[in-house]
Amino acid sequence: VAVVGPSDASAAEIILAYAVGRELAQNGVVVLTGGGAGVMEAASRGAREGGGWAVGILPGTNRSEANVHVALPLPTGLGEARNAVVVTAAQAVIAIGGALGTLSEIALALRLGRAVIGLGTWTAADPKGSALSVTPAQSPEEAVRLAIQEVD
Amino acid sequence: VAVVGPSDASAAEIILAYAVGRELAQNGVVVLTGGGAGVMEAASRGAREGGGWAVGILPGTNRSEANVHVALPLPTGLGEARNAVVVTAAQAVIAIGGALGTLSEIALALRLGRAVIGLGTWTAADPKGSALSVTPAQSPEEAVRLAIQEVD
Amino acid sequence: VAVVGPSDASAAEIILAYAVGRELAQNGVVVLTGGGAGVMEAASRGAREGGGWAVGILPGTNRSEANVHVALPLPTGLGEARNAVVVTAAQAVIAIGGALGTLSEIALALRLGRAVIGLGTWTAADPKGSALSVTPAQSPEEAVRLAIQEVD
Amino acid sequence: VAVVGPSDASAAEIILAYAVGRELAQNGVVVLTGGGAGVMEAASRGAREGGGWAVGILPGTNRSEANVHVALPLPTGLGEARNAVVVTAAQAVIAIGGALGTLSEIALALRLGRAVIGLGTWTAADPKGSALSVTPAQSPEEAVRLAIQEVD
Repeated sequence: VAVVGPSDASAAEIILAYAVGRELAQNGVVVLTGGGAGVMEAASRGAREGGGWAVGILPGTNRSEANVHVALPLPTGLGEARNAVVVTAAQAVIAIGGALGTLSEIALALRLGRAVIGLGTWTAADPKGSALSVTPAQSPEEAVRLAIQEVD
Repeated sequence: VAVVGPSDASAAEIILAYAVGRELAQNGVVVLTGGGAGVMEAASRGAREGGGWAVGILPGTNRSEANVHVALPLPTGLGEARNAVVVTAAQAVIAIGGALGTLSEIALALRLGRAVIGLGTWTAADPKGSALSVTPAQSPEEAVRLAIQEVD
Repeated sequence: VAVVGPSDASAAEIILAYAVGRELAQNGVVVLTGGGAGVMEAASRGAREGGGWAVGILPGTNRSEANVHVALPLPTGLGEARNAVVVTAAQAVIAIGGALGTLSEIALALRLGRAVIGLGTWTAADPKGSALSVTPAQSPEEAVRLAIQEVD
Repeated sequence: VAVVGPSDASAAEIILAYAVGRELAQNGVVVLTGGGAGVMEAASRGAREGGGWAVGILPGTNRSEANVHVALPLPTGLGEARNAVVVTAAQAVIAIGGALGTLSEIALALRLGRAVIGLGTWTAADPKGSALSVTPAQSPEEAVRLAIQEVD
């Protein structure tokens, strides 16, 4: 399961991301993130402190870009195109907060048929007024429960 | 300038895309698209019939995937990650219609600092209620005029 | 450490790859491969049976492409460009056998400054006659020892 | 047709690359390169002075990275993975000189079934002693003639 969100996150988003990462780890699920700061770092810390594994799929070519809680840093060298790798690699995506990169990840994940669970993230409507099919969650625990239903 | 939009487009979207491609070509601007059907094909046809060039940045490895109006088909083999290439390669993006791939391209383009002009496309708001900074246009001519302001 | 080599491997290459994967795992090193058949599958099996982890960085979008020994399948959707991700993600590369994809991975890894250890793989010379700086190993154990020297 | 070779090229390589670019352009063929210095710049200059078009598929996100002879700069943001795009986008590849990136492009192009013509470039042999199936050319004119046979 991927956890996506801004590197420049609010305190509330960081608390949510930490709880999501911890809960995923306690359910034995590997946490994928972009390996950076903010939501990515908090989810990785949660995964580590929950006894699990955080994988960081990095934009650059250097492992040292990863936050310190990432157990497996994977530099890709792909820049922004690494967002496509993060969501392709995941079976489900939990989106927290509102960065532009997050919106691109939500859209790509839905395009690839991955389930997307939202915790205080983007809302969007196409020209006909149809909303994005992001499943809203009210809590980190609910987000994790919904995401785990999508995992083999 | 990139023209992005659904392969499965409405008649109205196809008319808009054709007019945008034609107008760009008549202003001497190369038209970048994903090289496929729908909006991509109509913009490419407009570019060709306007005396210009359509470049198709394709997801697969085979030139024959391009629609017949593409002057320069560039297979990338990158799958959905080619969307990142389309918008990175452009100086400005005109978005028509409401596919999920289109939304990912809008978000990535804004993230990269490219101007995005919308003609009947997605609206979105982040958790604080701030809208995407897509500049709305009322006509193909206005969209092209706004996009050309961004080109060196 | 990445283990790269052909999906269509000889019996001897498969034995080497298995031994390399197992030895890496017994040294506590995560084994990265392209997740496919042949050398990739044998190294993954070795990693699993050595009590370690095999990560499979897949070309397609579907986890089911991974061989059954991969603990963490990461579909990228990037096609052949995933080779660049495999070697960028690694701190060192062990190359076994002689597929064209393997040669591209050796060249990219050296370009990125990753150490490359060869076990019966390509030899190449540039127009001035300078050989590729691949370090030859005589056994899986030597290959792993040389690779581990490169790991932080 | 793609022309690939080192950014840090010898005087002889630059003369060859210029002649290849010019000859391709005079035959009405678009010249694809990585858009950088050395062989890429010389081939692009040849294309321009031969009355044709040079397309530069750049590793970064900024058009200004392209050499000044590139008619159509396409920043990809993909870093080294843009090498895969250069050869996937081409119908045939002419390789000049001996950089590591060049070797990765030769190997990927052959893997994708693209013809590769060599003008003073890498030689390589797999573990069984089979050479790379690069077609050697004795002159820029011969290289272009061989490459054009592969173009639709």
